[in-house]
Amino acid sequence: MNSHSPRRKIGFLGGGQLARMMILEAHRLGLEPHVFTANANDPAAQATRFTTIGKLQDIKSLENFLEKMDLVTFESEFAPPETLKALEKSSKKRIFPSPEIMRVLQNRLSQKQTLQKFKIPTAHFFPVSTAQDLMAAWNSLNGAFVLKKNFGGYDGYGTFFAKKISDLKGLEEKLQTEPQGFIAEQMISFQRELAAIFVRSANGKTLCLPLVETHQTQGRCDWVRGPLTHKQWPFMQKKIFKMMKGLDYVGALGVEMFDTGRELLVNELAPRVHNSGHYSQQALLESQFTLHLKAGLGEHLNPVQVLAPQFVMTNLLGESDKELVPPNDLKGVLHLYGKTENRPGRKMGHVNYLGPKGSKLLSAALKERKKFQL
Amino acid sequence: MNSHSPRRKIGFLGGGQLARMMILEAHRLGLEPHVFTANANDPAAQATRFTTIGKLQDIKSLENFLEKMDLVTFESEFAPPETLKALEKSSKKRIFPSPEIMRVLQNRLSQKQTLQKFKIPTAHFFPVSTAQDLMAAWNSLNGAFVLKKNFGGYDGYGTFFAKKISDLKGLEEKLQTEPQGFIAEQMISFQRELAAIFVRSANGKTLCLPLVETHQTQGRCDWVRGPLTHKQWPFMQKKIFKMMKGLDYVGALGVEMFDTGRELLVNELAPRVHNSGHYSQQALLESQFTLHLKAGLGEHLNPVQVLAPQFVMTNLLGESDKELVPPNDLKGVLHLYGKTENRPGRKMGHVNYLGPKGSKLLSAALKERKKFQL
Repeated sequence: MNSHSPRRKIGFLGGGQLARMMILEAHRLGLEPHVFTANANDPAAQATRFTTIGKLQDIKSLENFLEKMDLVTFESEFAPPETLKALEKSSKKRIFPSPEIMRVLQNRLSQKQTLQKFKIPTAHFFPVSTAQDLMAAWNSLNGAFVLKKNFGGYDGYGTFFAKKISDLKGLEEKLQTEPQGFIAEQMISFQRELAAIFVRSANGKTLCLPLVETHQTQGRCDWVRGPLTHKQWPFMQKKIFKMMKGLDYVGALGVEMFDTGRELLVNELAPRVHNSGHYSQQALLESQFTLHLKAGLGEHLNPVQVLAPQFVMTNLLGESDKELVPPNDLKGVLHLYGKTENRPGRKMGHVNYLGPKGSKLLSAALKERKKFQL
Repeated sequence: MNSHSPRRKIGFLGGGQLARMMILEAHRLGLEPHVFTANANDPAAQATRFTTIGKLQDIKSLENFLEKMDLVTFESEFAPPETLKALEKSSKKRIFPSPEIMRVLQNRLSQKQTLQKFKIPTAHFFPVSTAQDLMAAWNSLNGAFVLKKNFGGYDGYGTFFAKKISDLKGLEEKLQTEPQGFIAEQMISFQRELAAIFVRSANGKTLCLPLVETHQTQGRCDWVRGPLTHKQWPFMQKKIFKMMKGLDYVGALGVEMFDTGRELLVNELAPRVHNSGHYSQQALLESQFTLHLKAGLGEHLNPVQVLAPQFVMTNLLGESDKELVPPNDLKGVLHLYGKTENRPGRKMGHVNYLGPKGSKLLSAALKERKKFQL
């Protein structure tokens, strides 16, 4: 099969909404999207005829799946170590980002060390596995810190705050529960959170999507708006591009940042498409999902074309176990994930908006969200 | 289930590229798209987990399929009469456009009579089933005409030209082959062909997408560009809206027109999404595929938002039986249909372009098409 053949089989590990949205773009590009997931009715599995039912821990069925694919990518950074090992073995396959990169970035401590290695500004941190470490972290980070699980923390899960010294006692108990340990991070007082999607193609070319503001509610993405500028942004871009080259990174990379008013600090890297980039489905000629696939295919990346002066994305987070119902006269562009059950806090979909310069796009979008049954 | 429930089951009759592109949008809207088609690997069947294998003539399996759907639509106007009859019977189901409308518009003669009834400018015509009719048509249409099959003609198939009186002899033989007969249409000398997609929601609201120029090669759509204006366009829009209301039409309607320099004449109505509207996937905030679904759901239709001053779509028609291969550095936005076999003249995909005012977008697009292996 020709290396540019569009009929290549591309495998997605994981069947949630991120895989679903990548699969919709894969169809458009003429690829044959296959999904490896636990349930036949998972969001991504609904959107393709080619589904393999399995868990990432089932190495045998994973290997069978890999055998059939021309290209494989991840929907989440939290593949178990034995899965990554199996993926590394099947080296003839082009897996992107590489299993080695996933191993480094899925662990909070080694991710922070990577940022440090590439001189990317980030909050100070301290590895923690014992009660003594907690006290040492308290002293080293000038009192008050955020304790995070090294593995598997996301959307605010696995994050704990030490605001006064008496909090340390309660945190001690947490330490027993995590084989991969914790990291204590300096508490950053920030004005706002920013983010951007970076992309690097297997052909070595890179690009960066617009800088956006992201707003979280209870640790989950609530809304995103852009495009923004920041005086430290060109410097930060240069640093991230250098890191991607150094790692030989392939695919989309979500970069979450704190804006302290003066400087930008990287909070977190997500080695995949990311909620902060969903606006790109309407606001850009090519979305983060398309770009991730083109990157994996080693295709040329065109300059980013932004289609409106302002854009906003609002997340639809469940607030009940009732069925999600959109308003009949929705102005925004709806994206639902096909989840069969709603529940409080669950990411059920999002809505994208484009607007002219100076319009009150965000407040109109938030107002429209109130019309949903969530 | 709530009438606005996004998890409604929507059935697509037919599994080609039009159903495929509607299905990709149905996923986005959170609908559950089901396809009724002959082969499991048909373009649309690849893009959903819910496929029923069957032919439109298999009334029993069609009825079983209908039974399970909340909403049903067509990919083609050429459903056989017995199929339309079965669809009419299951009246509880919301089928759009209605089977009655499909029956009227799928037949060239009754379609022309409908245009006439609503006083929509169109070329003169003459029903033909005998040799005498051919001669009468020749006299009535001032010599020279186009002979078209009443049923099943598309993309230039089933169309024959009578340019000199001696051609009539050859056409006589054709007459025996078509149970539904032929229609002779006045030969129109036009400057260019124009088209537009109209949409009417089940809630009664209508809209019209931008007027475009379409260029055919050997009866098939070759490229489309827009947006355009024409001094007769507002008049024509009013007429078409009136017809849609009169027919209680629901869904997208493709309208092909001749521009004679002075006037616009409707050439053909396609009661479905249409090749001349594919540009809308990039150039509009909501594509024809989305709008067709929203129309069937009875949703509010937002004013059309055009995202660029100029747009172009080029069709990818097969030129060989080799695999279609896009250039690695494609500038346009690729849409491939997942067809497993290429062949000359087959619609394999299309490419969409957006551009600034005054740019040579069409010639750049046609130049880029030469870089495909087709």
